[in-house]
Amino acid sequence: MRAVDLIRRKRDSGELTREEIEQLIAAYTAGGIPDYQMSAWLMAVVLRGMTRPEIAALTEAMLHSGSVLDFSYLPSRKVDKHSTGGVGDKTSLVIAPIVAAGGLKVPMISGRGLGHSGGTLDKLESIPGFNVNLPLDEFRRVLATCGCSLIGQTAEIAPADKKIYALRDVTGTVESPALICASIMSKKLAEGIDALVLDVKTGSGAFMKNIEDAANLAELLVETGKRMGKKVVALITDMNQPLGCTAGNAMEVAECIEVLGGAGPTDLRELCLELAAWMFLLGERVKTLDEGKKLSADLIASGLAREKFREIVGLQGGDVGVVDDPGRLARAKHSFVVTSPLAGYIASIQCEQLGVAGVVLGGGREKKEDKIDPAVGLEFHKRIGDAVERGEPLCALHYNADTRLVEARSLAETAYRIEPEKPKTVPPLIYRVIGA
Amino acid sequence: MRAVDLIRRKRDSGELTREEIEQLIAAYTAGGIPDYQMSAWLMAVVLRGMTRPEIAALTEAMLHSGSVLDFSYLPSRKVDKHSTGGVGDKTSLVIAPIVAAGGLKVPMISGRGLGHSGGTLDKLESIPGFNVNLPLDEFRRVLATCGCSLIGQTAEIAPADKKIYALRDVTGTVESPALICASIMSKKLAEGIDALVLDVKTGSGAFMKNIEDAANLAELLVETGKRMGKKVVALITDMNQPLGCTAGNAMEVAECIEVLGGAGPTDLRELCLELAAWMFLLGERVKTLDEGKKLSADLIASGLAREKFREIVGLQGGDVGVVDDPGRLARAKHSFVVTSPLAGYIASIQCEQLGVAGVVLGGGREKKEDKIDPAVGLEFHKRIGDAVERGEPLCALHYNADTRLVEARSLAETAYRIEPEKPKTVPPLIYRVIGA
Repeated sequence: MRAVDLIRRKRDSGELTREEIEQLIAAYTAGGIPDYQMSAWLMAVVLRGMTRPEIAALTEAMLHSGSVLDFSYLPSRKVDKHSTGGVGDKTSLVIAPIVAAGGLKVPMISGRGLGHSGGTLDKLESIPGFNVNLPLDEFRRVLATCGCSLIGQTAEIAPADKKIYALRDVTGTVESPALICASIMSKKLAEGIDALVLDVKTGSGAFMKNIEDAANLAELLVETGKRMGKKVVALITDMNQPLGCTAGNAMEVAECIEVLGGAGPTDLRELCLELAAWMFLLGERVKTLDEGKKLSADLIASGLAREKFREIVGLQGGDVGVVDDPGRLARAKHSFVVTSPLAGYIASIQCEQLGVAGVVLGGGREKKEDKIDPAVGLEFHKRIGDAVERGEPLCALHYNADTRLVEARSLAETAYRIEPEKPKTVPPLIYRVIGA
Repeated sequence: MRAVDLIRRKRDSGELTREEIEQLIAAYTAGGIPDYQMSAWLMAVVLRGMTRPEIAALTEAMLHSGSVLDFSYLPSRKVDKHSTGGVGDKTSLVIAPIVAAGGLKVPMISGRGLGHSGGTLDKLESIPGFNVNLPLDEFRRVLATCGCSLIGQTAEIAPADKKIYALRDVTGTVESPALICASIMSKKLAEGIDALVLDVKTGSGAFMKNIEDAANLAELLVETGKRMGKKVVALITDMNQPLGCTAGNAMEVAECIEVLGGAGPTDLRELCLELAAWMFLLGERVKTLDEGKKLSADLIASGLAREKFREIVGLQGGDVGVVDDPGRLARAKHSFVVTSPLAGYIASIQCEQLGVAGVVLGGGREKKEDKIDPAVGLEFHKRIGDAVERGEPLCALHYNADTRLVEARSLAETAYRIEPEKPKTVPPLIYRVIGA
């Protein structure tokens, strides 16, 4: 196999065999193929696509590039949730403790921020001391102890995906259903889970801008998961505006603690209840979705979910004091308020632009090596359909470095479209469920 | 500028500004952008294309990444020729001495074999002692002394192109008119020439398989050159069969010496006279193309062109004895004759396959690091339209290593299509001239 031949074949819309894909992934993981060849191949995949057999072969090649965990020795079902990512998308931090508090096991291997979207690991690391880099033994121990552990991809888990994911982030090769499917499913299938709930985002702040693309990806994910013997459903949910009221690592942790405390923004709370309910249903903890929602709400109201979050934070070395006093989290030095230039209604939001503004402020990475500033981020004051007065705040930028403000401000200022008439419809939270 | 944004914009068929392209090329040349980002961008360019303003900006950015030579202190016009490459395409070695003998200056910076096509530098290096790696000072001295010097790209000339060219070769990003144009023109415009004649090959042995693609590339090259204030024409010439009777470095040098001696294959001689005539015309040495052809023929007949070649070889450290006795060139130990399996006429030739056969024999490189065997190559006995008897030789493979014969033989044996009827037309030598 010559890598350049496989690149050329994909560039010319050709199909690769299972063996060729296995060799490509194995060689890249072992360092036998340089990054510059892989990134050219990835760009060809983004622009030419992959067939279903190619996607299946890629997913399995990436899955088997490392260890596949087995938690069958633990009682109760192992379930997980995965989101395709968006702006202010922080549900994992709420759902994982709810579902663990409800008696299921949640072995959650998460990712970092990718492009304009945030990542669970980056959010968790804004809790002082929180260690997302547990070795697998420790991951198993925390999971057995409290029913949930949240870590990053270890060297053992789908190392091919780890390497490819980092490369995609900096080479404009994120937005490919084939690559997204292989990346998600290779990691998730390595977790030793029985069931998986997928939150496939669509809209101006999602990787899939339109609902049909999102539905296609969702079907691809569900099909791939079911082929591997897992229970899988996918919810197509809205990302035409940020989820909740914040985007920024420490700010989002604080917001999740609010939701776990029974408060917080309605949209975030609703989506968390819905996703947790599906996890309970697929994990056979409840018989109906409504029962799952009620159980989730009860676990919040009783404080058990919040208590579970505190337990997880403690077991993973984090400052549990944060759970009672989110003021202990890092806070940006400066704020800039973006106000509305005219009166009217929020007609639409360029949500990805808001995500990029967060990256520009230092809350995400422009290059793999970049260090994240946990304190910075955006606070959102208006949602689609809201009335707004001239001069009224639309959002606030919380920042530490003046040099970063200009670009972020310009992104945020141009992200809101304001019209004189109230929009006839606002985006629903959930569009449809696939695979149920 | 974030490299990933420029990659994404091109991926999504967007246009980059002149400043963005300048920054991208400058940063890549300086090492500020890694290979893996550049290769993803290059693949996006291959699949999405570039606009004319983008191509102009890319060419100029690559040109100004290094020194731009200035030979205005030398009397008479500076002209050059560039071919897009093919099999047996050896005209530079004939034309450069003709045009220099005719009084113009030919500062020729050439390339090495790429893919299945040969390269002027590899051919020249089959002359014992010939040094193609002259420093610029020495290049200037040889040019001033004898009116011509033939060297490879130095570190000073278009370093951005040098780096990008090497990357393209191994990432499947060679076949892009935009990138080909920027690569050729940035190097050629750095030579300090007044005029350039382009030989754009089309056919089964060229990078541009069909004439429309070749014409589009030719127009792009001509437009780009003219915009930079140069006189430029492009000849679209045939590469559906090898040029001349040999493909192989030492064998091609011997064939060029034949042409310079007034003999040699008709097609090679004709094309050389035509290209040299255009150089004389653009260089204002003659008033008409016919006058240019006559001058070229006279310079061969008088022996002055051959004498000029000897002078160049001597000044660049080569064995001048080769000019009188090509038998001093390396010669392969073994030969294998490919014969026709049936009687009929040569209907078509898979010319690229013959080029690859030459690479397989060791005459070209499969990897950048490969060493070339100057002695090996192919000798062609039949051209399209020729009658052939069963068992009559089609071509001969000259080789040194038995292990290389099997694959090369199979490539050569399947390269000829023989039909019972004589083909109605044979490819012309020259299809059209663009920019005249």
